[in-house]
Amino acid sequence: MRIPKKERQRIIAQSFQEEPFLTDEEMAKRCNVSIQTIRLDRVELGIPELRERIKHMAENHFDPVKSLLQEEVIGEIVDLQLDQSGVSILEINKEHVFARNQIARGHILFAQANSLAVAIVDAEVALTGSAGIRFVRPVRLGEKCIAHAKVIRKQINNSLQVDVKTKVNGEIVFQGIFDVYRLEDGRVSM
Amino acid sequence: MRIPKKERQRIIAQSFQEEPFLTDEEMAKRCNVSIQTIRLDRVELGIPELRERIKHMAENHFDPVKSLLQEEVIGEIVDLQLDQSGVSILEINKEHVFARNQIARGHILFAQANSLAVAIVDAEVALTGSAGIRFVRPVRLGEKCIAHAKVIRKQINNSLQVDVKTKVNGEIVFQGIFDVYRLEDGRVSM
Repeated sequence: MRIPKKERQRIIAQSFQEEPFLTDEEMAKRCNVSIQTIRLDRVELGIPELRERIKHMAENHFDPVKSLLQEEVIGEIVDLQLDQSGVSILEINKEHVFARNQIARGHILFAQANSLAVAIVDAEVALTGSAGIRFVRPVRLGEKCIAHAKVIRKQINNSLQVDVKTKVNGEIVFQGIFDVYRLEDGRVSM
Repeated sequence: MRIPKKERQRIIAQSFQEEPFLTDEEMAKRCNVSIQTIRLDRVELGIPELRERIKHMAENHFDPVKSLLQEEVIGEIVDLQLDQSGVSILEINKEHVFARNQIARGHILFAQANSLAVAIVDAEVALTGSAGIRFVRPVRLGEKCIAHAKVIRKQINNSLQVDVKTKVNGEIVFQGIFDVYRLEDGRVSM
């Protein structure tokens, strides 16, 4: 069913506002129109393309990572509020997939989520204590994984519970709950 | 308390039989003697050193990995009984640790355990569905992680539950339960 253009543009404007990482492809599917139509809508609405939106977010203020060196994060962090939430992006390339079926290796998705969960922690040193994870559907070569992390509980013993959901085109592909410990004084005392 | 030599040698012979990956260092601790003493005991008992024991195990018959290419396994598989059990060894090197504190990154231990859990599966294609994991104590640069995997349940829907315990010098550093799916026909239908 076609949605009238005006209504479609309202949906598009709102969706990109709420989910800045939505691709044109996914938006096209949701509205049941061609990708070209979405592109034209974006131009009319003044919404920049995905790459520009990400760049803009990355340039905007977000907290610097404390618990890791920037290059130790798997994926690119594009939003971070220490002890609260974070977003990272990882595009699956040839090094990330099994040779036989071009499916991303489990530990790559785990690494993105885990390093984001650690990066969120407002401490010099943070370590993962435990995690429960689920690979919801296989991720393939070339797909762009967007991990959204949220602190869902702060515990007395200096640990945080972090919920991470990784999506490809708005669809959840991985989810995990990570218990992460902060080590205030730099010592490891787990 | 010193154990008499005869009793000590009995313990040593039995321990190396049951745990071929025990280091002389750990054995020395257990018997409360010097590493040199353990080395001499081994010579007297005709027990080869760790490296030789590992080489010997690796040369012995064990099932070839089916679900992964050999080079896709993280760590070196030294024992494998398809759909039953497996052992792999990973020595933590500079690429595996955080720069700041020389502690192994979580996803490295996860990757060793996960790829062993997948390697166990007697199928051309196997994927991890979910996992519950625990990092028991931090692992440091240079430590040798020995992962022991055991199939603890075979389910009707073609999935296996694999228990993995990773040890350093006999001490558990990581443990996880992995639900792994076999995909008989090579299709991915999770």
